[in-house]
Amino acid sequence: MELREGERLDDLMIRGLSLIQNPKWFCFGMDAVLLSDFADAAEGERVIDLGTGTGILPLLLWAKTRGEHFTGLEIIPEMADMARRSVAGNHLEEKIDIVEGDIREAAQLFGRASFQAVTCNPPYIKAGTGLVSKDPRSAAARHEVLVTMEDVAKTAAALLVPGGRFYLVHRPRRLAEILRLLGDAGLTPKRLAMVHPYAGEAANMFLLEAVLGGGEGLSVEAPIIVYDAPGRYTADVLARYGLDAGKE
Amino acid sequence: MELREGERLDDLMIRGLSLIQNPKWFCFGMDAVLLSDFADAAEGERVIDLGTGTGILPLLLWAKTRGEHFTGLEIIPEMADMARRSVAGNHLEEKIDIVEGDIREAAQLFGRASFQAVTCNPPYIKAGTGLVSKDPRSAAARHEVLVTMEDVAKTAAALLVPGGRFYLVHRPRRLAEILRLLGDAGLTPKRLAMVHPYAGEAANMFLLEAVLGGGEGLSVEAPIIVYDAPGRYTADVLARYGLDAGKE
Repeated sequence: MELREGERLDDLMIRGLSLIQNPKWFCFGMDAVLLSDFADAAEGERVIDLGTGTGILPLLLWAKTRGEHFTGLEIIPEMADMARRSVAGNHLEEKIDIVEGDIREAAQLFGRASFQAVTCNPPYIKAGTGLVSKDPRSAAARHEVLVTMEDVAKTAAALLVPGGRFYLVHRPRRLAEILRLLGDAGLTPKRLAMVHPYAGEAANMFLLEAVLGGGEGLSVEAPIIVYDAPGRYTADVLARYGLDAGKE
Repeated sequence: MELREGERLDDLMIRGLSLIQNPKWFCFGMDAVLLSDFADAAEGERVIDLGTGTGILPLLLWAKTRGEHFTGLEIIPEMADMARRSVAGNHLEEKIDIVEGDIREAAQLFGRASFQAVTCNPPYIKAGTGLVSKDPRSAAARHEVLVTMEDVAKTAAALLVPGGRFYLVHRPRRLAEILRLLGDAGLTPKRLAMVHPYAGEAANMFLLEAVLGGGEGLSVEAPIIVYDAPGRYTADVLARYGLDAGKE
């Protein structure tokens, strides 16, 4: 792998994959890991990840699903370059494309109805709320400075074939608003899973699957509990990570 | 207590309360019990339960909160009569009023902005879906034949003072739709708890608190798990029931 200054190489512990990250900008977290397990892609399907950052989701989805091809769309040039070097270093250029571009222009870039599944681990915080990082790469990963959840919902709906699935991870505090935005875009929420750090604690993330033009009827799955003791993941979360023994 | 044919008297096992029920019509379940714990009323507050049926919610709320006065609104005359006899049998006529009337006319009946809290354990199933009971009392408890969730949301908003709380129990499959209806009525979802029969199973109910004119920001509380073995309630659910040792 070709590393630049400030970058590190992480072993993803699944199918021999490694990932380049720059800890000064953003490192992937439990949200990406859980989303890669919650999402699915069947044989022959094409998947796009909106705002792919390091490319963690296309890499994990390639490792964990039977999808045919994965695209990662990323607006920040240095992030796209880093993700592209990770893909090349893993010799996955034929399976994963990293495309530099704006989520709001994705339907023009790729054409409407061109994917069976869309994933997104978006910035969680509205622009103008809280302290925004001065580094544009950190800021874009956390705050809606370059794209809003409404843009993401509209883009996902435009990119999906009818019946296609949108997979999202986000914060519970914005659940009501997000369900509305998705519904307005024609995406019907079908599966929801709450993620709680500990069994007795409030949720700090949710995972959602919405279907373009799907019928009514949401299923709220068993809660996902991350830790059973400080620093010790639950068996459920370890299984969801799907380390090398996983879905081979 | 004055019992009519087909009725039975149940010990609520809290503050000496008993409840008249008719098993042919409808008996209260875990949903009412969990809602009575999820809801709260402070000293001096007035609470109304929309579609009170047997009157189980006003009785449990009287037992478990510091609220000043509780009203149960019920459209079916025999149910209202039964609830009224339960209230009288428990000598709570000064604390609980059972009023016969239509939820859709509640704002005219009681006046706008006349309660600090509204509770509702509504019929879960849309009219025209599934098999509707031929008995109007059973049908009204399960299907939206006399009132829809949209009516309930609008009525709750009309009855509440600004900042007043609406407490609801409902089915996860309708969560997205209900959050939207509440939002449209000016009720902002603030607290959500999912109820799962077992830890590893999908949710079969949710509890929701929405605030009239509240600010954004939903909290998804720790999941509520009902059973840890067949027929054996979890310690959490037993504590929520608040049997006699409870909140005295």
